[in-house]
Amino acid sequence: MEGVDHLAHERSKAQFDVDEMKIVWAGSRHSFEVSDRISRLVASDPVFRKDNRTMLARKDLFKNTLRKAAHAWKRIIDLRLTEEEAKTLRFFVDEPAYTDLHWGMFLPAIQGQGTDEQQEKWLPLAYKMQIIGCYAQTELGHGSNVQGLETTATFDPQKDEFIINSPTLTSSKWWPGGLGKISTHAVVYARLITDGQDHGVHGFIVQLRSLDDHLPLPGITVGDIGMKFGSGAYNSMDNGVLRFDNVRIPRDQMLMRVSQVTREGKYMQSNVPRQLVYGTMVFVRKTIVSDASCALSRAVCIATRYSAVRRQFGSQKGGVETQVIDYKTQQSRLFPLLASAYAFRFVGEWLSWLYTDVTQRLQAKDFATLPEAHACTAGLKSLTTSATADAIEECRKLCGGHGYLSSSGLPELFAVYVPACTYEGDNIVLLLQVARFLVKTVSQLVSGKKPVGTTAYLGRVELLMQSRPNVQKAEDWLQPSVIVEVFEARATRMSVACAKNVSKFPSLEEGFAELSADLVEAAVAHCQLIVVSKFIEKLQQVIPGKGVKEQLLNLCYIYALFLLHKHLGDFVSTGCITPKQASLANDQLRSLYSQVRPNAVALVDAFNYTDHYLSSVLGRYDGNVYQNLYDEAWKDPLNESVVPDGYHEYVRPLLTQQLRNARL
Amino acid sequence: MEGVDHLAHERSKAQFDVDEMKIVWAGSRHSFEVSDRISRLVASDPVFRKDNRTMLARKDLFKNTLRKAAHAWKRIIDLRLTEEEAKTLRFFVDEPAYTDLHWGMFLPAIQGQGTDEQQEKWLPLAYKMQIIGCYAQTELGHGSNVQGLETTATFDPQKDEFIINSPTLTSSKWWPGGLGKISTHAVVYARLITDGQDHGVHGFIVQLRSLDDHLPLPGITVGDIGMKFGSGAYNSMDNGVLRFDNVRIPRDQMLMRVSQVTREGKYMQSNVPRQLVYGTMVFVRKTIVSDASCALSRAVCIATRYSAVRRQFGSQKGGVETQVIDYKTQQSRLFPLLASAYAFRFVGEWLSWLYTDVTQRLQAKDFATLPEAHACTAGLKSLTTSATADAIEECRKLCGGHGYLSSSGLPELFAVYVPACTYEGDNIVLLLQVARFLVKTVSQLVSGKKPVGTTAYLGRVELLMQSRPNVQKAEDWLQPSVIVEVFEARATRMSVACAKNVSKFPSLEEGFAELSADLVEAAVAHCQLIVVSKFIEKLQQVIPGKGVKEQLLNLCYIYALFLLHKHLGDFVSTGCITPKQASLANDQLRSLYSQVRPNAVALVDAFNYTDHYLSSVLGRYDGNVYQNLYDEAWKDPLNESVVPDGYHEYVRPLLTQQLRNARL
Ligand SMILES: Cc1cc2nc3c(=O)[nH]c(=O)nc-3n(C[C@H](O)[C@H](O)[C@H](O)COP(=O)(O)OP(=O)(O)OC[C@H]3O[C@@H](n4cnc5c(N)ncnc54)[C@H](O)[C@@H]3O)c2cc1C
Ligand SMILES: Cc1cc2nc3c(=O)[nH]c(=O)nc-3n(C[C@H](O)[C@H](O)[C@H](O)COP(=O)(O)OP(=O)(O)OC[C@H]3O[C@@H](n4cnc5c(N)ncnc54)[C@H](O)[C@@H]3O)c2cc1C
Ligand SMILES: [Ca+2]
Repeated sequence: MEGVDHLAHERSKAQFDVDEMKIVWAGSRHSFEVSDRISRLVASDPVFRKDNRTMLARKDLFKNTLRKAAHAWKRIIDLRLTEEEAKTLRFFVDEPAYTDLHWGMFLPAIQGQGTDEQQEKWLPLAYKMQIIGCYAQTELGHGSNVQGLETTATFDPQKDEFIINSPTLTSSKWWPGGLGKISTHAVVYARLITDGQDHGVHGFIVQLRSLDDHLPLPGITVGDIGMKFGSGAYNSMDNGVLRFDNVRIPRDQMLMRVSQVTREGKYMQSNVPRQLVYGTMVFVRKTIVSDASCALSRAVCIATRYSAVRRQFGSQKGGVETQVIDYKTQQSRLFPLLASAYAFRFVGEWLSWLYTDVTQRLQAKDFATLPEAHACTAGLKSLTTSATADAIEECRKLCGGHGYLSSSGLPELFAVYVPACTYEGDNIVLLLQVARFLVKTVSQLVSGKKPVGTTAYLGRVELLMQSRPNVQKAEDWLQPSVIVEVFEARATRMSVACAKNVSKFPSLEEGFAELSADLVEAAVAHCQLIVVSKFIEKLQQVIPGKGVKEQLLNLCYIYALFLLHKHLGDFVSTGCITPKQASLANDQLRSLYSQVRPNAVALVDAFNYTDHYLSSVLGRYDGNVYQNLYDEAWKDPLNESVVPDGYHEYVRPLLTQQLRNARL
Repeated sequence: MEGVDHLAHERSKAQFDVDEMKIVWAGSRHSFEVSDRISRLVASDPVFRKDNRTMLARKDLFKNTLRKAAHAWKRIIDLRLTEEEAKTLRFFVDEPAYTDLHWGMFLPAIQGQGTDEQQEKWLPLAYKMQIIGCYAQTELGHGSNVQGLETTATFDPQKDEFIINSPTLTSSKWWPGGLGKISTHAVVYARLITDGQDHGVHGFIVQLRSLDDHLPLPGITVGDIGMKFGSGAYNSMDNGVLRFDNVRIPRDQMLMRVSQVTREGKYMQSNVPRQLVYGTMVFVRKTIVSDASCALSRAVCIATRYSAVRRQFGSQKGGVETQVIDYKTQQSRLFPLLASAYAFRFVGEWLSWLYTDVTQRLQAKDFATLPEAHACTAGLKSLTTSATADAIEECRKLCGGHGYLSSSGLPELFAVYVPACTYEGDNIVLLLQVARFLVKTVSQLVSGKKPVGTTAYLGRVELLMQSRPNVQKAEDWLQPSVIVEVFEARATRMSVACAKNVSKFPSLEEGFAELSADLVEAAVAHCQLIVVSKFIEKLQQVIPGKGVKEQLLNLCYIYALFLLHKHLGDFVSTGCITPKQASLANDQLRSLYSQVRPNAVALVDAFNYTDHYLSSVLGRYDGNVYQNLYDEAWKDPLNESVVPDGYHEYVRPLLTQQLRNARL
């Protein structure tokens, strides 16, 4: 049956132009072309095969990742790929590796925090990979609270050097990717101490290993922190532990763009605004949100295709059974996730715009909108990563028993994805920051301060505290203005309630602490509003292609009405909608599912993922699931011999009842 | 710091008698004593060590599991353990193994479906493990829909034999645990065909492997289906694939308790009632519910202890930081899970009673309550396993970055637990069964049919459609009768609404299909009511021990009010409570969290888990987390050499820019 498209029937049902949708998903024709070309390049290269990943022991897995990273670099050079193409290639190699941190954290840290001279010295080395760097911030005892880091960098004016030291066990650096086995250098965050005075946490470039023999330099203890979730997943990465025993580095290896230590040991601020960090933060989070849409769409693609292949129940004796994608429960679990994938894609796109905007404002020294941009990206990072992590597992469950097999691709996708909820800011800690910003914004309304950007709606607080949507029948929900207003009303009322309740406490801090669970919910409401709004804004643009906009509109409504149902308590108890209107929304949702159903497979085809990238037997483009599941199974090492290792020692004595005398 | 109890301060704060709580948790003094003794026995035996599990390649892991299984059996024999003790020992060995299916499915299938003669022949062999059996139902193409299985068992009257055959690829048996490499026998489910007539699915005892050399018998193809979620987890189990090429078995190997094939090939029903299957089903599900409480309590124990050890933020420069367990967000995520662990424990206990009740009724040929018992156990299986799977992952997130390390124990606990949502009935498929039963029960109310057991409350439908709780201030929520009434009202109104809406469709089947997502929610509401009610009933018993009942009461309220908050939309939109009452419930919840806080560590100590069973550095009894995390890390194979394998081939050429000519 090779070469047969088992899903051809599904594809023929699509009511829109899939090729045009591919462009929309990719963001532009150019992006589509690059990602299409590079993903095929990776897929066709045997060095980049992934299907054996979960069977490799840690050391073999790791070595194979080193091989892939080197091969990727060679391809990038040999083919003279552009920066965009190189990035795309690394993305499709799809395996956590030290290069992620080198390109994603080490270089940007130097770019953002290094002086011009420092950049001139270090960046060329890093660009050519003559040095390999990582980002060493987190310690065994300190993660979320960066200000609590214990590693010290004490200035020695005698020698014009900093002494980097790990004074306690809990000050050991712990987690940095690429640190354990590979990095030659690190940006190390440590408390700066000059003349006995603690100036808080600053970044330092520290060489860790000799460039001759790769051995750790004197005073440095470094290693891998061990196995993590999954069998492949992040185990291809050498997250590391690092201790310093009074290691000396030259003074000019402190990253001095924002603050400096002079030859005499004087601590000084430069005239570069501290707000610079916002730029980097927005950049990193925009990447995380777009990664969320990739991971989510990948899981949804697998679950959708398999749900169209899988049949269960509903036949008369011996007849063909019902495709599980036709069950309304399956649709009500799957289609909102499909809609979320598109929603996150578009909000990620919007964040690219926001990044440009923030960068321009920084250059113009206009800092007014930065706190809002900061809160907004913190919230979107949290919202999209939490939702994606949950969704991957839901997609796995949607595949029934077979989803539990590594060959389904979903277990490893989950295992490799979930830390996104924790790194770059624990999601709850981030939402608390958003909530504080919202409460502050609400409190400042009375003084006439106009909220900006994604919080602008709070300026219409009086209206939104009163508004009631004009929804009398199910189809009334199919109006963008109604949707936005309801989401704005809910977010407003929750933020206002929080602000009011917090103010009842003896101190604001007590109020925040005591009501923090409510605050988190208000922050979520705000962030969901942003995603819904940006989806709707996207649809106000011209979108060419037969039926493309119609499909996106359906998905947009599904996303919004699904959230409305999921958080019904918020909407109804704040009086934003009535129970009757909620039930109409549900009716509408069911009808939207029916409209999406014939387009479902085409809507995931639009992601344009290769079978290599999906690495899922269940998600294969051709839908030829069973034969491939069957063939995959026999590759397991356990099947190398018919009688398993251990049978003679541990099973036979049992069967023959000779256990008593056996030595186990 | 060995020997120091880092959590002593927490333990000293407890306001109740932990030893008495241990008895309550165990179910009786006797159960406590057995589980305490056996868990220590397992913990102290080096053969049973688990800490290296995630580092082993599949074959080594599997072989080590065979060793443990043999050793367990030897200990059971040598120490002359009772059946209860043996079961407890296998439980604490805590590693999926072929023995689970042998004892848990193969034996019970013969007991339940075999005739007396069949039992006499096969059970002694199985009891002594002279044969090892598995349960081969699921096929590559057929899981949930057992009636759709394709394997055939055709009677050949000439030879008085059945011919077992796999007519298609999708008819390959797929998933049975213990099948892949170890089982000598299987109970195989196949379509019985006599004289060209298909009698549907029946069970057959089939020998798979030679007892001499363990090779598959002629006509049998058998192997392992490959890697599953996680690196340890279920990979210690040989879930298998099995194909039959016209394999012949004697007629007396069809399990003939309920239906028979005579020598002449006549198909007949015996006078044994078909309802017998209910007994087995209740038994299996009772075990699954009690396993849920174990897995959940284990995750909660780890997250609670670590949350008391972990400190983050809230210090003045250099001072000691706040324990993260003191943050209200942490409490509002963790304490409801702690409460759920106790709730599931008690509902599991109640299911033991239900099993006895069902058994007695079966003996008395009283089948009236069986459908209700069936629906109830299906629902509780679904509810507790879904909640537990989610909770384990939430506990992992509650541990921040360190929860992502295998040494935290949480990744493998998740990976090994999640299939419980799928096996023994996909949780959604089960909830749909519950919903159908509820709708039927509601529809029959008009005809005067009195609902029984856990659905009895529906008999008070008129009252419950009207009732409003008398809650005017937060403490008013602290009344069991108020809680139960509100949960009954919500479940009733949702079931009634479903029944009403379903009846609007042209046919009942169409209605069920179209509204299935609503039906699932009504089923969940019903099941949550059962758990809440059984918790409350438990507390109406005498519970000795200083402060024990007070703690349980707090947990019971937390469980109920947390659900109320989580499903607020249900409660408010059905008019069961007002928004104001919802907000009072939230206030009360916060105050309950504060009351639990000083008791949290003691409440998880009451589970009486050994460090061996927890296998978590974060959950260690002594709280000495950091030193042990640090020491654990160095054991990873990657740390065997300072310069990693692959450096010379794949990293050095990069650093020295000699990549271009390198052969990768
Ligand atoms: C795969 C992976 C890769 C990583 N890579 C790197 C890297 O390259 N470089 C690097 O420096 N670090 C890295 N990290 C570390 C990562 O940045 C931290 O784990 C992350 O910042 C979370 O901090 P934590 O682990 O200390 O969590 P904690 O702060 O200890 O969180 C534990 C719990 O406490 C709660 N909590 C904490 N503070 C508060 C508060 N104020 N209010 C309410 N609740 C609170 C959290 O919500 C959470 O539930 C990585 C981590 C992982 C898992
Ligand atoms: C670890 C593990 C161990 C196992 N051990 C054994 C064993 O020892 N012996 C054995 O025989 N089997 C075993 N199984 C198989 C297991 O029993 C099946 O996987 C399970 O019954 C689910 O069936 P399925 O995989 O066919 O799921 P499917 O039915 O294919 O489910 C796929 C999706 O379809 C949905 N769906 C299916 N039917 C309906 C419907 N009517 N209405 C709405 N939605 C529907 C489901 O909700 C799910 O989302 C094991 C499985 C696992 C994962
Ligand atoms: Ca492995």
